Amino acid sequence: MSDRRPSKILALSGGVGGAKLACGLYAVLPPGGLGVLVNTGDDFSHLGLSISPDLDTVMYTLAGVVNPETGWGRAGESWTFMDATAALGGDAWFRLGDKDLAVHVERTRRLRAGEPLGAVTAELCHRFGIAAEVMPMSDDAIATLVDSDAGTLAFQDYFVRRGCEPRVRGFRFQGIEAARPNPRALAWLEDPDLAAIVIGPSNPFVSVAPILAVPGLRDALAQRRVPLVAVSPIVGGQAIKGPAAKMMDELGIRPSAAWVAEQYGDLLDGLVIDETDRDLAAGIHGPRVLVAQTVMRTATDRARLAGEVLGFAAELRR
Amino acid sequence: MSDRRPSKILALSGGVGGAKLACGLYAVLPPGGLGVLVNTGDDFSHLGLSISPDLDTVMYTLAGVVNPETGWGRAGESWTFMDATAALGGDAWFRLGDKDLAVHVERTRRLRAGEPLGAVTAELCHRFGIAAEVMPMSDDAIATLVDSDAGTLAFQDYFVRRGCEPRVRGFRFQGIEAARPNPRALAWLEDPDLAAIVIGPSNPFVSVAPILAVPGLRDALAQRRVPLVAVSPIVGGQAIKGPAAKMMDELGIRPSAAWVAEQYGDLLDGLVIDETDRDLAAGIHGPRVLVAQTVMRTATDRARLAGEVLGFAAELRR
Repeated sequence: MSDRRPSKILALSGGVGGAKLACGLYAVLPPGGLGVLVNTGDDFSHLGLSISPDLDTVMYTLAGVVNPETGWGRAGESWTFMDATAALGGDAWFRLGDKDLAVHVERTRRLRAGEPLGAVTAELCHRFGIAAEVMPMSDDAIATLVDSDAGTLAFQDYFVRRGCEPRVRGFRFQGIEAARPNPRALAWLEDPDLAAIVIGPSNPFVSVAPILAVPGLRDALAQRRVPLVAVSPIVGGQAIKGPAAKMMDELGIRPSAAWVAEQYGDLLDGLVIDETDRDLAAGIHGPRVLVAQTVMRTATDRARLAGEVLGFAAELRR
Repeated sequence: MSDRRPSKILALSGGVGGAKLACGLYAVLPPGGLGVLVNTGDDFSHLGLSISPDLDTVMYTLAGVVNPETGWGRAGESWTFMDATAALGGDAWFRLGDKDLAVHVERTRRLRAGEPLGAVTAELCHRFGIAAEVMPMSDDAIATLVDSDAGTLAFQDYFVRRGCEPRVRGFRFQGIEAARPNPRALAWLEDPDLAAIVIGPSNPFVSVAPILAVPGLRDALAQRRVPLVAVSPIVGGQAIKGPAAKMMDELGIRPSAAWVAEQYGDLLDGLVIDETDRDLAAGIHGPRVLVAQTVMRTATDRARLAGEVLGFAAELRR
């Protein structure tokens, strides 16, 4: 009989913030110890290509090829294809770099040949030499729609083309009722080696909510036998990146880490909040609270936060 | 009643050689006066993208964006996508440049949306500002197969991947029986303003033969009311570019301009041969023969040859 402690971590992630924490976890966990369950509500077809922005951000970040300036896209990117497309009158509002394009073309080819998105993602990650399992939340098409004062908008139309300008009224996940969870995600949740589940500092509305809305996934998470810890994406009443705080404001919610705790409710065993928000800790009821430096500027920041999250989860297991 | 002379020219073309002559014709004809009917037997799907090599060579040449070193592909091309694809283990034997890719992505998107190849080609040419009509020989898929001592090979496998190394035994055009001619080609052939038809110095086996093999096209050409002139692609027993002479040799044919006359047979009213082959003129029976400088190294060479071809066709109309 082995007394080896369970050591695997399943992280839930949207784009940049979740990818950074996943990268920290990847650095401190043994090979094969990290699974990343990724939002695909942002996925869309553009110029006839199948684009999965959050999967790519996680993949590029773990592979160490991400653009360090932006946190998404590829380092040392060039834009010859995009310029040639624009010169022909094609859409250029969603920028596809020449290196990035290699992934979109290969993904599109495989999906059209009938491979599920999960298998395509696994193959791409394998080719990038990533020793973690990156999984779409579902192999089925799900599209986040933004109800706004400019009407109902496809997510990338809202997010990229309109730069999050319209005031949001709510969100819908088209196709979610019929979607099945990625089977590998369920396998991770049932793995006896699983030690904890971590919701990264991703947008609660459009990155985490779609994952939790996939039928079967929230139930499987609710029935977990391991601690679930979230890292608040709201620091000092602001989002580190992206429109989360703006969305809350437009929805009449005062942006705070306390709201994040409410949002995830019963799912949450622990919440990691930033040192800036230390004073909020006493007012958060339900989950245990860890105060840490959650803003990740360097690889060291990521690894340290990952270490603190793992230690926190280990405490919660006792 | 107008005594205006008919002034339109329909050119048949494969890749580089035919494109150069088409470019010369384009330079000397009035806007809208040139139609180019292009081989699509080389077309194939690569990395999930729909590639039409001869259409692109003609389009890039007429648009003035062709790579002047190679005669195909785009000038000032970069290869970031190709390198990124190769780094992921993808096929890199057929080189798709970053600029070139803008055309393949747009063509693929439109074809998948149900547009016929002819309409897609017209739209691309419009965006490149080309005032000639470039037409695929058919909107239907036709694939040139090469029977060789290495077995039956897809054309690009033979031509690019294997560098024309295998010895050829014959050629087949898969899908040709069911293919319909591009309706615009038939409209050009019936246009009362059509003054002549010109077969460019393209490979008789794999560039011109597929066009002539499209059911209805050869008949329509045979029933023409205007002269048909071909420019021999064989000069001094050699092909200026490509494997035409090698193919003839392997098929037991002595490469010469005289054979070209035999090959096109009754279709031919006039044959343009190179000054190098002046001595062959007396032995060519059937078509009238014009001796000219057919090797096109400069824009001036192209325009001069085009002018000579037009003059020759005008003589044949008398």
